[in-house]
Amino acid sequence: MASSRTTRGSRMLPPEVDARVAAIAADRESGASELAMRALEAFEAFATVGPAPAELQELAGTLAAAQPSMAAVRNVAHLCAQLLGEGHEPTLTFQELRRELAGAADKIARNALKVIVGKSIAITLSRSASVIAVLQILHLRGRLSAVTVLESRPRFEGRRTAQELAAAGIPVKLVTDANGPRLVGTSDLVLAGADSVLRDGGLVNKVGTYGLALAAKAAGKPFYAACEVMKLDATHASDSFPPPAGRPPDELDPPPNVVAENVYFELTPADLVTSYITDKGVYEPRRIAQLVTL
Amino acid sequence: MASSRTTRGSRMLPPEVDARVAAIAADRESGASELAMRALEAFEAFATVGPAPAELQELAGTLAAAQPSMAAVRNVAHLCAQLLGEGHEPTLTFQELRRELAGAADKIARNALKVIVGKSIAITLSRSASVIAVLQILHLRGRLSAVTVLESRPRFEGRRTAQELAAAGIPVKLVTDANGPRLVGTSDLVLAGADSVLRDGGLVNKVGTYGLALAAKAAGKPFYAACEVMKLDATHASDSFPPPAGRPPDELDPPPNVVAENVYFELTPADLVTSYITDKGVYEPRRIAQLVTL
Repeated sequence: MASSRTTRGSRMLPPEVDARVAAIAADRESGASELAMRALEAFEAFATVGPAPAELQELAGTLAAAQPSMAAVRNVAHLCAQLLGEGHEPTLTFQELRRELAGAADKIARNALKVIVGKSIAITLSRSASVIAVLQILHLRGRLSAVTVLESRPRFEGRRTAQELAAAGIPVKLVTDANGPRLVGTSDLVLAGADSVLRDGGLVNKVGTYGLALAAKAAGKPFYAACEVMKLDATHASDSFPPPAGRPPDELDPPPNVVAENVYFELTPADLVTSYITDKGVYEPRRIAQLVTL
Repeated sequence: MASSRTTRGSRMLPPEVDARVAAIAADRESGASELAMRALEAFEAFATVGPAPAELQELAGTLAAAQPSMAAVRNVAHLCAQLLGEGHEPTLTFQELRRELAGAADKIARNALKVIVGKSIAITLSRSASVIAVLQILHLRGRLSAVTVLESRPRFEGRRTAQELAAAGIPVKLVTDANGPRLVGTSDLVLAGADSVLRDGGLVNKVGTYGLALAAKAAGKPFYAACEVMKLDATHASDSFPPPAGRPPDELDPPPNVVAENVYFELTPADLVTSYITDKGVYEPRRIAQLVTL
């Protein structure tokens, strides 16, 4: 995880910053929101050594490459590089960005109350701080009957979601991913998180999302994705989004002589998304392009 | 697993027959074709004690209840009861039924060659003797580029399928169930087995099938189900098919305080099935009703 600064003859990244970038690249547990916060912290650590604007841009590029499926990491990194490069006072800048990131889930949750009315059975997958915030506020307002959580790949991370929801007093049912599409029919809505939202309203999220979205369309149920606008990807639309890389095949524990392919992310096309519930408001997928150009 | 004969004051099932019924009820590994053969063997064991026609019908009912999602078990059991009850010679009857069951996979495979032309990438799930026979013949005839196998629930039984295909020299890729719908887009066809086929052409098969079928329709790819006509269920259509029962939740290893629901089978509606590849021919789902009344 050496910085490209080495090859240009500039200073190495300080070991602490380098370690933070490496940790972000290796992280297969945390959601995009958490990793965006880690990217912010890498910049905070770098700011202490008084880097030049070009060095800030290099760190931003390195962070973006560490988690290429997560626009929030790229966006936060480039925003840090830009603001610091323009001479903004670091302490205040980081304070404000941190407040923005940390406060997003609460705003998303309150915006969810505008579209999810009545008392619903929800089905969800994977692990998303935004989704958990939405489900918690629905529960507190008496608008949630129960939640079905897929055990989820990669690494059965839905189990952790189920455990957190159960701890919050929400009636939770854990099921296999294979049962997901079938169970959309007995739910009122699908609620997913997002790793990135593409320019054309396409949704990049953990595998399993596309199957739930297809089932929602077939059953006439709404499919919501909850996320910060920080996750909008200005650089890619669905047709230019690069296929997500494979992760270690060993995670599937394949039998002898069998090749496994282990992919974490997939694209759900815009026409399967009913709306995006964000910290700035609720948007249909076709409105995303306008938000990106703001 | 006591026979209902007890409550009517008739003889108990002989211990060997009773053990065979119990083994069929407890079996969560074998496919419907294998279990139909086991049902035949239970009748063979019972025939040696010279049962009365009413007793034969009782055993048939008990076997049907042992695997309620599998019409082949019920059909074979009732056919045995009927033929023996009509006075057919047991040894010859069992020989003929055994030949019929054992030879079905080969006939299905040869019928598959009529519809699967060109050289295909196939995606499949779960474990089905018919599916494996079809893939093997396609491979031998040079009509198979590669197969993607979902690890499959219940109990990751797709791993065994992947291993068998790899052993037959077929290029195989094992992936998580969550990746299935996405990978239909890069395949040429979906090939599933069947646990039962309902009167209206609905398909009862292992969970994960519905998601693949939805994805096939969305991507404009054919969805084939390979099975014996012995699997046609004359008693149920999609609207009367009882929801499959839950199996032991422990198989999902749920975290503390989280409730798991573990369902093995699901219904895929007839309009998502391109055709059924059977031992008697290849049929569109709307033709199934005619076959059932034959």
